[in-house]
Amino acid sequence: MTSDVNAGAAAKGLPRRDDFSDWYSEILWRAEIVDTRYPVKGVCVWQPFGFKMRSLIYSILRSLLDDSGHEEVLFPLLIPRSELMKEEEHIKGFEGEVFWVTRGGYEELDVPLALRPTSETAIYPMLNLWIRSHRDLPIRIYQVVNVFRYETKHTRPLIRVREITSFKEAHTAHASREDAEEQVHVAVEIYKRFFDRLAVPYIVTERPEWDKFPGAERTIAFDTLMPDGRTMQIATIHMLGDKFARTFDITFEDCDGNRKFVQQTCYGISERCVAAVIAVHGDDHGLVLPPEVAPVQVVIVPIVFSRDEMRDDVLSVCSELRDALDDANIRVVLDDSDERPGAKFYKWEMKGVPLRIEVGPRDLKTGKCVFVTRHDLNKFHVNLSTEEVVGMVRKTLARIYEEMKANAWRRFNDMIISLSAETTAASSAESDASDASSDTSASDEDVLSLIGAKMRGGIVNVFMCPKCGKALKELTGASVLGTPFDGRKKGKCVVCSQECAELYVARTY
Amino acid sequence: MTSDVNAGAAAKGLPRRDDFSDWYSEILWRAEIVDTRYPVKGVCVWQPFGFKMRSLIYSILRSLLDDSGHEEVLFPLLIPRSELMKEEEHIKGFEGEVFWVTRGGYEELDVPLALRPTSETAIYPMLNLWIRSHRDLPIRIYQVVNVFRYETKHTRPLIRVREITSFKEAHTAHASREDAEEQVHVAVEIYKRFFDRLAVPYIVTERPEWDKFPGAERTIAFDTLMPDGRTMQIATIHMLGDKFARTFDITFEDCDGNRKFVQQTCYGISERCVAAVIAVHGDDHGLVLPPEVAPVQVVIVPIVFSRDEMRDDVLSVCSELRDALDDANIRVVLDDSDERPGAKFYKWEMKGVPLRIEVGPRDLKTGKCVFVTRHDLNKFHVNLSTEEVVGMVRKTLARIYEEMKANAWRRFNDMIISLSAETTAASSAESDASDASSDTSASDEDVLSLIGAKMRGGIVNVFMCPKCGKALKELTGASVLGTPFDGRKKGKCVVCSQECAELYVARTY
Repeated sequence: MTSDVNAGAAAKGLPRRDDFSDWYSEILWRAEIVDTRYPVKGVCVWQPFGFKMRSLIYSILRSLLDDSGHEEVLFPLLIPRSELMKEEEHIKGFEGEVFWVTRGGYEELDVPLALRPTSETAIYPMLNLWIRSHRDLPIRIYQVVNVFRYETKHTRPLIRVREITSFKEAHTAHASREDAEEQVHVAVEIYKRFFDRLAVPYIVTERPEWDKFPGAERTIAFDTLMPDGRTMQIATIHMLGDKFARTFDITFEDCDGNRKFVQQTCYGISERCVAAVIAVHGDDHGLVLPPEVAPVQVVIVPIVFSRDEMRDDVLSVCSELRDALDDANIRVVLDDSDERPGAKFYKWEMKGVPLRIEVGPRDLKTGKCVFVTRHDLNKFHVNLSTEEVVGMVRKTLARIYEEMKANAWRRFNDMIISLSAETTAASSAESDASDASSDTSASDEDVLSLIGAKMRGGIVNVFMCPKCGKALKELTGASVLGTPFDGRKKGKCVVCSQECAELYVARTY
Repeated sequence: MTSDVNAGAAAKGLPRRDDFSDWYSEILWRAEIVDTRYPVKGVCVWQPFGFKMRSLIYSILRSLLDDSGHEEVLFPLLIPRSELMKEEEHIKGFEGEVFWVTRGGYEELDVPLALRPTSETAIYPMLNLWIRSHRDLPIRIYQVVNVFRYETKHTRPLIRVREITSFKEAHTAHASREDAEEQVHVAVEIYKRFFDRLAVPYIVTERPEWDKFPGAERTIAFDTLMPDGRTMQIATIHMLGDKFARTFDITFEDCDGNRKFVQQTCYGISERCVAAVIAVHGDDHGLVLPPEVAPVQVVIVPIVFSRDEMRDDVLSVCSELRDALDDANIRVVLDDSDERPGAKFYKWEMKGVPLRIEVGPRDLKTGKCVFVTRHDLNKFHVNLSTEEVVGMVRKTLARIYEEMKANAWRRFNDMIISLSAETTAASSAESDASDASSDTSASDEDVLSLIGAKMRGGIVNVFMCPKCGKALKELTGASVLGTPFDGRKKGKCVVCSQECAELYVARTY
C-alpha cells in the first residue's frame, strides 16, 4: 500500500553498501521494513512487508524453543518499583534507562510502575509462587514482548531503540548448578541453530567481568559483523546462579526434603536479529533474504507490453506457474501490474526476493523460462513445465540458502584478524627503533594502538589478559567481546606477556 | 509445570457454574489459563496452557483478516500527549483512563507519553504520510497489541483489566463513504465467522447514540451471554466517516485531481474472546473447548495399574495411537504419568480436552477402545486399529464442534426474551387496576420495571424508542445494547407508543 510513496524516493538510487549507515536507513525505508517518522524518538512502525519478515524470523525462533522443552507465556508490561528495585546489582544496570508510569487518569499512582526493561523482576516473584518441589523443575519458559529502554545515545532502528518491539526472553530454573550450566550450553546450541537458519555468521564469547548482564554470574554473547567492520551483539545467555533466587526467595524441596534455592539462567534475542539479516546479506541493489524468511520467495514477472499479441498467452502461463507454486506452499507473487519489467525488477530486488522467474513471448516458443537468483544476480533457463519449474524452484531456493550462508561466513571470517605475538612485537620494535628512549609503557601503548588500527577491518583475535584488554578499551574506545566460548587456547598476553586466554576485540554497535 | 501447585486446590471441588463469578475465577486458576497473583492490580500472567489457547484463537482471527485483504503491522505503544489530545471527542472518552509515562531514567520527559488505550491517534498521523492518491486506497491494516486502561472499577481477568494483552485492532481507509460503509459490513461478516469458529453465539446491534465509540459516527457491537444472564461485549466495529481524517488531515487526490478526506472504519476484538470461549462452553467439571482452539485435542489414558501384567502391551498400543494421531496433525497427549486414571480424567476434563481415549487390558482382548466426549461426557467404543481410531477422532472432533455450537446457540436463544406490547400492557393494566389514580408516568415506570425484572433471565427484545430506552437505563441500571444490525422491524414503543425500532436491552459486564 505504501509502495507508491516509497517508489518516489527510488529515483535517487540506493547509497552504496560501503556507506553502511546511510545504506541501512535507506533500505529500511525503501524495502518497507519500518517507518521511522513516528513522532516519538527511538521508536518506529513496522510496515506490512517488514512485519511479515519479522514474523517469519520469530517463528523459527519459537519453533526451536518449543521443540526443546520451552513453553511460551506472557507476563505483564508493568513492574512495580519495589520489585524492580529488589536486586541491587540488577537495578544498577538498568535504573538510568527505565521509563516510569506515574499517573493513571487524573491521579498520581501510589507506586510508580516501570515499563519492563527486561522481565526478571516481573517473572521471578511468580516463580517464587510456582515452584514448590523438585518435581516442578526444570522450568523453561519464554515470552516475546515489547521492552523499553530510555536510550539517551543516538538511536538507530531495530538496533538501538526505546521500544524493542520483539524481545524474546527465556527464563529457566533448575535443581542444581550443573543443570543450569548444562542449560547455558543448550541455549548456545539453540541460538547457533537459529542464526544458521538465518545464514548469519557469529562468534560466541564469554563477556568480560565488566560487561556482564547486571546480576549475572556469567554472560555469553553472540556477535555478528556489520559491513563497516563493527560488531553487533545479537544474542546473550546468562548464568544467574542463585543470585536472583536469593533475592526473590525461589526455593524448592529436594528429594531429601531439604529446602534449596533454584539455579537460574536467562537468555534473550531482540529484533537485532532482523537487523542482522538485513545488514549481513544486503547489497547495493537492496535486501537479499534467505528464502526461509523472505515474505515473497518467488516473483513471476511477465515480460510483455500492452500491445503484445501474445500477452494473454504469457499471462496465462504465468498464472499457471503461480498457482502451481502456491499449491506447493511457496510464497509467490505474480506481478502483473502495469509497470515496465525493469521497474518490477528494481522493486523486487530491493525487497530481496530470492528468485525471479521471467516469462516472455519468446520463452513460450522455446519452451523455457528464465530464473534469476537475487543473491548473485545469475540467470539460467528452466523448461517451462509446471512440474519442472516447481522442482527447480525448490532446488534453487535450497541452493540459494547454502550459498548465502557460505558467502556470509567467508566474508565474516575474512574480517577476523588474528594478531600473533610476532606481529605485535615487530610493530612495537619498529616503534622502538624510531624512538630509542621509549619506555615499556610507551611500547605497550603502541601495541594497543596497532590493535586499535587493525580493528577498523573487523574483529581482532589476540592473546591478551583482561587487564590489558581493559586498557585497550580505555585507550581506543573499542570493546572487548570476550574469550571464545568453545575451546580456550592459552597463550601469552601480547602486551604484558602474562599467561592468558584468546580475546576477541572490536568496535561495536 | 504448575500442575502440582494447582492440583492442590482441586480437592475443594469446582464451584457450580450457576455461581458464575466464583466458577470463572476458579476455572482460570485450575485450568492454568492465567495467574492473577501478579503484584499489580488488574493485570495477570498467561500460563503456558492459557497462552496456547489464546494463540490458537488469535490465529483464527489473523487468518480471517489476512484472507480478506488485511495486512498486519505494528505501531508503537507510546503516544505523545499532543497526538492523543487532537481529536476532542475521542480524548473525552479516554482521558480518565490513560496511563501516563512521565519519567525516563532520572529525567522528567518534556512531553508525557500515553500507553495506548487504543491506537487511532498512533496510526492516523502515519496514514497522513502514507496516503497520497486514490491508488493508495483502500488501506486495511491490523495489529495485535497490548493496550492499557486505568480501570477504577472492579477488575476481572480477561474481561475488565488494566493491561489488555491482546487487542486486535483493524483500521481501514477508503476513497468513498460507500466503500467505508461496505467495509463495516465486511467486518461484521468476518467477526461472525470468527465467533462461529469459536461456537460462541452473539447478537449484533447498533449501539445507541450515547454508547458509541468516542469519535465514531456509528458503533456496531457483538454481545454474547454469560451464564448468569449478563451480556458481554466481545467485538465492536466503528464507522468513523471523515472525522479523524479531518483531525489528522488524511487526504488523497481522486481520479479528477481533487483533494478529499478519506473515509475510515476501525474494529476491534480483545481477549474477551478467550473469556467468552471459557464462559459460554464451560461446565461444572471445568473447561469445555471447541477442538480447533483446544491446546490438547485428544488425551489418551491407559487404564493400567503398576502391577498389571498387560501394562506394557497397553502402553505400547497407546503409544502407537499417539504417534498415529500426531502424524495426522491432531494435538494429542498420552498421559502415562503415575497418577490414577480417575485423577487423570479429572485433570483433563478440567482443561476441556474435547476427546479422551481410554485403553485398558480388557480392551486389547475385545479389540476396542473407549472414546469419551468432553462436551456431553458420553462414551462409546471404537475398533482398536490406528486407521479406524484416527478416522473416528477426526469425525468425532467435527461432531463435537457442531454439537457445541448448536447447544450454545440453543441456550443463547432460550435467554432472549421477546416482550410484546400485549405482555407489557397486561402487566401495566394489572398495576393500574391496583391503583386507579395512577397517572401515565407511574404506569410507564411499571413497564420499565417489568422489563428490568425480565432482564434477570437474559437479553430482552422489545419495541422501544431511544428516549424510553434511556429512561430504562436510568431506572434499572440496565444497558441498551441497541437495535439489530440486520433487518430492522418497525413497531410501537411499549412505553410511549411512538413508532420505533426493536431494541435489545440487558444487564452487562
